[in-house]
Amino acid sequence: MERDIGIETGRLLAVGSVAFDSVETPAGSRQKALGGSAAYFSIAASYLADVSLVGIVGQDFGDAHVETLRSRGVDLSGLERADGETFHWSGVYSTEDVNQRETLDTRLNVFADFRPVLSEAHRRSEYLFLANIDPELQLDVLRQMRERPKVVALDSMNFWIEGKRAELDRVVREVDMFFVDEGEARSCAGEANLARAARRIQAMGPRVVVVKRGEHGATVFDGDEVFAAPALPLESVADPTGAGDSFAGGFMGAIASTGDVSNDGLRRAAAVGCVFGSFTVEDFSVDRLSSLTREEIEARFQEFTELTRLEPFEGGAALPLTELT
Amino acid sequence: MERDIGIETGRLLAVGSVAFDSVETPAGSRQKALGGSAAYFSIAASYLADVSLVGIVGQDFGDAHVETLRSRGVDLSGLERADGETFHWSGVYSTEDVNQRETLDTRLNVFADFRPVLSEAHRRSEYLFLANIDPELQLDVLRQMRERPKVVALDSMNFWIEGKRAELDRVVREVDMFFVDEGEARSCAGEANLARAARRIQAMGPRVVVVKRGEHGATVFDGDEVFAAPALPLESVADPTGAGDSFAGGFMGAIASTGDVSNDGLRRAAAVGCVFGSFTVEDFSVDRLSSLTREEIEARFQEFTELTRLEPFEGGAALPLTELT
Repeated sequence: MERDIGIETGRLLAVGSVAFDSVETPAGSRQKALGGSAAYFSIAASYLADVSLVGIVGQDFGDAHVETLRSRGVDLSGLERADGETFHWSGVYSTEDVNQRETLDTRLNVFADFRPVLSEAHRRSEYLFLANIDPELQLDVLRQMRERPKVVALDSMNFWIEGKRAELDRVVREVDMFFVDEGEARSCAGEANLARAARRIQAMGPRVVVVKRGEHGATVFDGDEVFAAPALPLESVADPTGAGDSFAGGFMGAIASTGDVSNDGLRRAAAVGCVFGSFTVEDFSVDRLSSLTREEIEARFQEFTELTRLEPFEGGAALPLTELT
Repeated sequence: MERDIGIETGRLLAVGSVAFDSVETPAGSRQKALGGSAAYFSIAASYLADVSLVGIVGQDFGDAHVETLRSRGVDLSGLERADGETFHWSGVYSTEDVNQRETLDTRLNVFADFRPVLSEAHRRSEYLFLANIDPELQLDVLRQMRERPKVVALDSMNFWIEGKRAELDRVVREVDMFFVDEGEARSCAGEANLARAARRIQAMGPRVVVVKRGEHGATVFDGDEVFAAPALPLESVADPTGAGDSFAGGFMGAIASTGDVSNDGLRRAAAVGCVFGSFTVEDFSVDRLSSLTREEIEARFQEFTELTRLEPFEGGAALPLTELT
């Protein structure tokens, strides 16, 4: 189904890491495969919107990786190639619980000196995703925009929550949506109860707090509304790396594609996010994510909607309660 | 809304523990409060069906506790009062994560000698819930039934999965529904992937495997269908004890009330289960669970349906995908 003529997809800008990931999971291992939050995000979003990626790689970033991104239509004019090596993360996932991982090594390499400078075209993007980087850089990117984008979304991590809290708070104050995992939400809010933690983060600025819960899905807190998006129950999980970033990419891709930031629109965006997150974990790196067909995406989305389908009780009663009550 | 005249609620029999719980949670502590899986189950189910409880208590089980159960209309003709003390469990919940708990002490007391003998009326129950007790006793109860009940549901725990596996397998083979938590599902199936674990348990006998995931809700595996029921995002959790049993009580209560074991019926039953689980954790022991009004239950059910409500994308497209795909 083609998009209606006359409706133009909003331009979506993603600023963040492009990396090599070396992972070992119960399903196998992979050395220096394409990774990084902005890479996963951009590829997922590319199925729904026009995406530009601003990031940095080293001289060792091969043509095949560039081609993977380019073949998905990702605008790479903002992908800087610096002297040195590409950001390299290594980790191992538990055999008992593939959702538990241990970082073996993090080599920032050229990413340590990443200072994003946006082109004139990128400064006019309508939708902005600030992937997990130093909050000072995130704020700097936001300052470079010519106009306030229609939607600014943010990701971060405990490293910044603990290490650059004041700077992070300044960014959080200015964004519309904040993607956090459960632990980050708790530590950011200083509150163990997740619902209360989300409310506190909303009070810091963002209208929307999206809590990523890995194999349990995601919960979208939007004003007083809550949407619980379950993860698809996959029988085969090869490599969970990038699931959260792919989720965010699908989510923001749907927002940029429709321009719909109503609560119903956010619910649909979260559903799309779950779909792309589910594809990512089915293979290593972006192998599955980067080669999807329309039919596969639509079938998976259908599967998602089936997962929570709930019809009313028969007979018109809200609930089949006894007369005792 | 009253139940239609002429439709008779199926009789639901619960066999399991009635106990004293002493708990310490971030919200406070409680000594020797009413607990036990069959108690939580029966009280939750009592809002939907005619429930009979078969269990054992000691001489120290006070009239107030009896009255709590009786006031909910639970048939206590099968509640044996033995010489000795009532089963007493003590535990402490983590302040960082209220879902983590540590058992301080388990005193089986009179429960150690529990040998359920069903009355003639109880042997004719149409719906049977075998709460977590020794699988040999569970099988014995099943053998006492005059006819195979319409639905037999089972709960168990790692203690039996590891300690009496052959006996447990014999019961599992004969039941329609098996309630397990995530760790139990993995250990029972010898499979880390939850979806595959559920499939393996289904292959052992039960048509339905209900995986209880605590604060993440529950997942119902019914044949090839999967229903993901999220937990309600509660801002106040006083005491998680009994949440799973209350979930099972609401679930089986809905089944017994409607007689509907279609996939749609199971989805609704799981939703009802989540509603009762959510009430239980809002206060200590059965304090909240045992004093609900019709209005509170219906409002919470409405909240649950809102939690996963998902409307189609506008414009008729299944998904707002780009033309690239």
